[in-house]
Amino acid sequence: MFVTVFLLLVTLCAQGGNGEEREEAQRPGHVSVVIVGGTGDLAKKYLWQGFFELYVNQVKSGYTFSFYGGGLSPADKATPVLFEILKAVSCPKDVSQERCALLKEQFLRLSQYRQLQSVEDYQDLAKHIEKELQQEGMTEAGRLFYLSVPAFAYADIADKINSSCRPTSGAWLRVVLEKPFGHDFRSAQVLASQLGNSLKDEEMYRIDHYLGKQVVSRILPFREENKKLLDPIWNRHHIERVEIVLKETLDVKGRIPFYDQYGVVRDVLQNHMTEVMTLLTMSLPMNLSSNEEVLRNKLQVFRSLLPVGKDQAVVGQYQAYKTEVQQELNKTKDHISITPTFAAVLTYIDEAQYEGVPILLISGKMLDERVGYARILFKNDIFCLQNHNSVHCKPKQIVFHFGHGSLKYPAILVSKNLFKPVLMDSAWKEVTEHKDVDVLGLPLSDYYVQTPIEQREAYYELISHIFAGRKNSFISTENLLASWGLWTPLLSSLASTFPRIYPGGAENGDLLDVHIKGKDISYHNEVVIISNDQIGGGFQVMQGKFRSSDMVSAWTEELVVRLAADIQEAAEAAVREGGVFHLALSGGSSPLALFHRLALHHFSFPWRDTHVWMVDERCVPLTDSESNFRNLHDHLLHHVRIPYYNIHPMPVQINQRLCVEEDGGALLYEKEVNKWVNGSSFHFVLLGVGYDSHTASLFPGSKVDDHGESLVALTESPIKPHQRMSLTFSAINRAHRVALLVMGKGKHELITQLSRVKDNPDKWPVTGVKPANGRLVWYIDYDALLG
Amino acid sequence: MFVTVFLLLVTLCAQGGNGEEREEAQRPGHVSVVIVGGTGDLAKKYLWQGFFELYVNQVKSGYTFSFYGGGLSPADKATPVLFEILKAVSCPKDVSQERCALLKEQFLRLSQYRQLQSVEDYQDLAKHIEKELQQEGMTEAGRLFYLSVPAFAYADIADKINSSCRPTSGAWLRVVLEKPFGHDFRSAQVLASQLGNSLKDEEMYRIDHYLGKQVVSRILPFREENKKLLDPIWNRHHIERVEIVLKETLDVKGRIPFYDQYGVVRDVLQNHMTEVMTLLTMSLPMNLSSNEEVLRNKLQVFRSLLPVGKDQAVVGQYQAYKTEVQQELNKTKDHISITPTFAAVLTYIDEAQYEGVPILLISGKMLDERVGYARILFKNDIFCLQNHNSVHCKPKQIVFHFGHGSLKYPAILVSKNLFKPVLMDSAWKEVTEHKDVDVLGLPLSDYYVQTPIEQREAYYELISHIFAGRKNSFISTENLLASWGLWTPLLSSLASTFPRIYPGGAENGDLLDVHIKGKDISYHNEVVIISNDQIGGGFQVMQGKFRSSDMVSAWTEELVVRLAADIQEAAEAAVREGGVFHLALSGGSSPLALFHRLALHHFSFPWRDTHVWMVDERCVPLTDSESNFRNLHDHLLHHVRIPYYNIHPMPVQINQRLCVEEDGGALLYEKEVNKWVNGSSFHFVLLGVGYDSHTASLFPGSKVDDHGESLVALTESPIKPHQRMSLTFSAINRAHRVALLVMGKGKHELITQLSRVKDNPDKWPVTGVKPANGRLVWYIDYDALLG
Repeated sequence: MFVTVFLLLVTLCAQGGNGEEREEAQRPGHVSVVIVGGTGDLAKKYLWQGFFELYVNQVKSGYTFSFYGGGLSPADKATPVLFEILKAVSCPKDVSQERCALLKEQFLRLSQYRQLQSVEDYQDLAKHIEKELQQEGMTEAGRLFYLSVPAFAYADIADKINSSCRPTSGAWLRVVLEKPFGHDFRSAQVLASQLGNSLKDEEMYRIDHYLGKQVVSRILPFREENKKLLDPIWNRHHIERVEIVLKETLDVKGRIPFYDQYGVVRDVLQNHMTEVMTLLTMSLPMNLSSNEEVLRNKLQVFRSLLPVGKDQAVVGQYQAYKTEVQQELNKTKDHISITPTFAAVLTYIDEAQYEGVPILLISGKMLDERVGYARILFKNDIFCLQNHNSVHCKPKQIVFHFGHGSLKYPAILVSKNLFKPVLMDSAWKEVTEHKDVDVLGLPLSDYYVQTPIEQREAYYELISHIFAGRKNSFISTENLLASWGLWTPLLSSLASTFPRIYPGGAENGDLLDVHIKGKDISYHNEVVIISNDQIGGGFQVMQGKFRSSDMVSAWTEELVVRLAADIQEAAEAAVREGGVFHLALSGGSSPLALFHRLALHHFSFPWRDTHVWMVDERCVPLTDSESNFRNLHDHLLHHVRIPYYNIHPMPVQINQRLCVEEDGGALLYEKEVNKWVNGSSFHFVLLGVGYDSHTASLFPGSKVDDHGESLVALTESPIKPHQRMSLTFSAINRAHRVALLVMGKGKHELITQLSRVKDNPDKWPVTGVKPANGRLVWYIDYDALLG
Repeated sequence: MFVTVFLLLVTLCAQGGNGEEREEAQRPGHVSVVIVGGTGDLAKKYLWQGFFELYVNQVKSGYTFSFYGGGLSPADKATPVLFEILKAVSCPKDVSQERCALLKEQFLRLSQYRQLQSVEDYQDLAKHIEKELQQEGMTEAGRLFYLSVPAFAYADIADKINSSCRPTSGAWLRVVLEKPFGHDFRSAQVLASQLGNSLKDEEMYRIDHYLGKQVVSRILPFREENKKLLDPIWNRHHIERVEIVLKETLDVKGRIPFYDQYGVVRDVLQNHMTEVMTLLTMSLPMNLSSNEEVLRNKLQVFRSLLPVGKDQAVVGQYQAYKTEVQQELNKTKDHISITPTFAAVLTYIDEAQYEGVPILLISGKMLDERVGYARILFKNDIFCLQNHNSVHCKPKQIVFHFGHGSLKYPAILVSKNLFKPVLMDSAWKEVTEHKDVDVLGLPLSDYYVQTPIEQREAYYELISHIFAGRKNSFISTENLLASWGLWTPLLSSLASTFPRIYPGGAENGDLLDVHIKGKDISYHNEVVIISNDQIGGGFQVMQGKFRSSDMVSAWTEELVVRLAADIQEAAEAAVREGGVFHLALSGGSSPLALFHRLALHHFSFPWRDTHVWMVDERCVPLTDSESNFRNLHDHLLHHVRIPYYNIHPMPVQINQRLCVEEDGGALLYEKEVNKWVNGSSFHFVLLGVGYDSHTASLFPGSKVDDHGESLVALTESPIKPHQRMSLTFSAINRAHRVALLVMGKGKHELITQLSRVKDNPDKWPVTGVKPANGRLVWYIDYDALLG
């Protein structure tokens, strides 16, 4: 069954009259290609054709090949199926008909079907390969296993390859995997570790066929070649937004059993679109072909991405999907699937370079057209005084057009008013004759256009990259896990999100248009949902009394909105009156939502005139992740423009030690308060309450009277870290306004108790909060209030 | 000559059969209106008509009037001229023909011409008024002087009014002034103080007729009425840019003697356009009719505006201007005027609310159309998936359309996809039938449109406001000086700027289109200027040696660009290698340009991983304006996103006292350096050199050897403040890289000396800079190097 390419070459070369390749041909050795799942859809559609092209391209290189289609069926049944597929492969255009026939015949002779089910089957394959190698006297170059099978079979097959079919020493092993690689972070991790038992990292080739698309694989080279022109504009000061869009017209009929488990986020966002996003935004590596550097820079993007949660996504499902699910999964009429077939996701990269630049990832089935592109839209920095139609007055954008759409072919388009890109890749050409189409709002003639001279299927590209060992075109384990790390929280929250139903095709109209609101995204047309749960649907804020003080109550989100608004109101009033606002903030997790609200929504907050003080602090270095200040810094202060001098962390670390009485940190802070704050009366003090009713860092049984007139004290917490620094009741009760924020079902019992007990600050510290001349307001969410 | 409105009323009322006004009519008293310059152009075109309308409107109010046209000509010559003007006034539409004739006749009888030249003339006028008052037995309500004369005459006239023509006690005096109010800050101040000698502030009514335009005067009420809808979007997160545009088609032929002294900036930007800008961006006052609050909030805008310099403006001059100047000013053919007739200016408000929002002020003569508007263009926050032509996909903007343009009438337009504005002013109406015109890129039907029911001339509005004493519609002295404070530095730099010559009208094409580049503005089409001064025109950076170290030299601006780039390069390399960059910066004025450059141009600087240290500090509180840290903070740190912990000011203030040896501040800083900086070797130290060759705060004669191995020391400066804290040579010379920045002609002598002297740190401290294992580079500008 073994026929070496060498022999073929002799035949071919004899015709050409040149025998020189003979010596060279022997060297590289023999490669065995095994497509597990060799008669499946993907193999039929792309893989065999891809390997045939590889074969044609490598014919002169001296490598010899054998090809195996593997599967679960017995050979007598599957062999004719395989050969039907193989007969359909076609030669590249530049190969003559005569030579093509010869190459195809040869390819058929080099190929065979093998049942690959049991360990013995793999052992037999190994023996077969070794026997043939021996017979022909060839050295082995490597074995390439392409697993075109469902993912659940990966670990088992990898195990069998490892135990029974590894090549002889010196030859490489490459195992190619197709997505899905898990369905969330945890499962991807499990799969990776299972595969890791059988295969080394460098032996795994995880395919994301988008990385084989010609335009996608040119993103980094394009950025590199045009670095000088792009550097000044490739940042938040110039980029208005980035859109990565993959629209499909097809449905998923017939694929429901797979698709319903995955949905659009797992199917294309987690992989293809995320890859494109990292290629667009990663720091350019010094060396494009350094796997290590590219990976490092990609991982940096993942680290910098703001978390993607429910508020950063909208999802949809095409109308017919429900019926398809019922039919294909044998479900009753009342079965509802909430698997999304459409999603629009908004992400931000929290680095100075891209801060505030919205990155939209949008994909769906059953839309109006089939198109894939990434668009970088630049801000309009021109003012046209008279001729508004001049080219330089038009939008400026770079479009990486992956394919289809009105343009039809893959291309990179740069608005003519931006710059003329250089073109260094000889496999690409400039398009100068423009047909009359519009690409994303501009006629084609308004762009400089580059396109590949020859369009090539992503799979054929990738197969040649596997053969060449170019790992950059594949997804490493770290990259994969980073991506799942980004998407898994969103997937969890989508597990209870009902997608908007859309009719499909042109009828969708503007139903799926989305609206960016700061860091959040929503559908543009809000559909009014009549909710049975009237309390859940409403946003009422309730006002009342609690422990004879004012109380505001609402659902958590509304409560935070209200508290933030109240703080801003207090700030504006204080600044109006005295030019300055002194705000003392607590640590703990409750205020986080408030900090986010203030950072992301209160654009006119008078930060310049606001001084921020700490209510309490843990005795850890300020940069420690347990530090209250660190928390406040990372979630609020770092995001607003507040002068350095207006920030007053507690001096818990003096003389390189933490909260030592003799270092006098508490007194130091008290002096600072006295120096800055008029009458030592903060304008606003935000407090929380612990389960044990502690507030600030004043815990039960700590004899708060001992603090006397001191404003700041060292205290002890029953839980770690035990040492604390805290404002005392003397300080708190001098404030103009005190807010006590209590949230979550876990606090319900406490709230119930507190509603009954008398003031007793030693036992129930929070009852010691009684501003002498100020106003106390309790902010209690419905969970805490109603349980 | 006195005929009271009361008598007229009796006549009119007798016809109407109602005599009730009789009693009321007596009360308000008599008003004398004096138009100085009463036969001039402005009076002829607007003022008499305006006062006639005032008269018609006040006829029923019970006020009585007399009107005087004043001028330098003798009465016999000027009286017929005045009456020709008066006969041409017309009644409002709603007045019947019969009544109109009666009112006009009455108005003529109430009016007279008086020569007003000498003090005696004013005394005579006063006597005349008093005599008539006495004769008629009327009480005086007030005297209104409208100075429609060149500004140089203001002070003199005001003086005469004050000395000879003040009303009897109890009646008001109002003196109305027309711009120009000075031609720069200094002259405006002088004029204001001259006027202040004769008139109280509340007696002066400085007219900016733009404030009488119906749309302009509705800006604040519109913002107030739509506050709820505007508040969430009236900020940098939603506003893309603000444009205030005033385009004219006319030239200034015939007005050159005036115009050539002023130019477009003084003529319209300093006043009309600046007023519109403040109305658009000021904080909304609680009470729109509070003069005080409106003024306070306006002044806050001026305080927050970034300075406007040469880089924030482009200027132009229409081609024919040159010839007009030669003719009207009797100049020779080689006379060149550089007075701009076109200007585009870019400003920014350095407040969180508007940070980074470009505000464009653009005006010119001889443009393609006559139109005035202010446009607030909002960011596109919509992604349209399928139907890109839906209304909600279109640009969102609010246009305050002052007049003309394709729309022709004044209006406020709000894109329908933004919100539907409320309309509370009964003098305005909604426009619902839209003619087929395009307003700033959108068809009229895409807007909600509000327009005044009746169009009124700005002057008639303002005359009624003067009469009502509404000072908000006029320019207070503080406001005026704040505006000149903004514009004067630009005007100074324009004194040597050649305007771009434009042909005028449609032919201008895109010659005047402008390009916003960060904080700078330039013409879009750069015209290549062949410069004789090849060194001046070039941007060469010279590399060489100075004191056996590397030297970089260039013109100041280029030198700073280069140094900033070198620092960023060092930062990136350090972060790549060790994840952190330690940068030590000097105080003084030299680094300011560098700080600006880093803050405004280095968007990808790795601030997150950069620690900033002080090279030296003055022993003053950190918030003191003399503090090096304060300087660094205000010009750099406050503008970039650097974590709080990465900022390391020197602890010059401990225990509420400054730089006391026992407080151990120097040792504290040394410990901090040791703790954070690997091997205590800063990656980059930026130094300057003083005239006495001191560097850091290491002064001549200070025995630097005494510092031994200490990294930080307290030192003495020969100039105030004497006490300093400074890095020592031990610290400086451990650095990986040291930059010595020397700029300005004043340093040339020092540089010459330094090039000759041997190392002697006690005498020439800077010669002690000799990094042991690092690299020293001198950055010397051409001024310092070449003198």
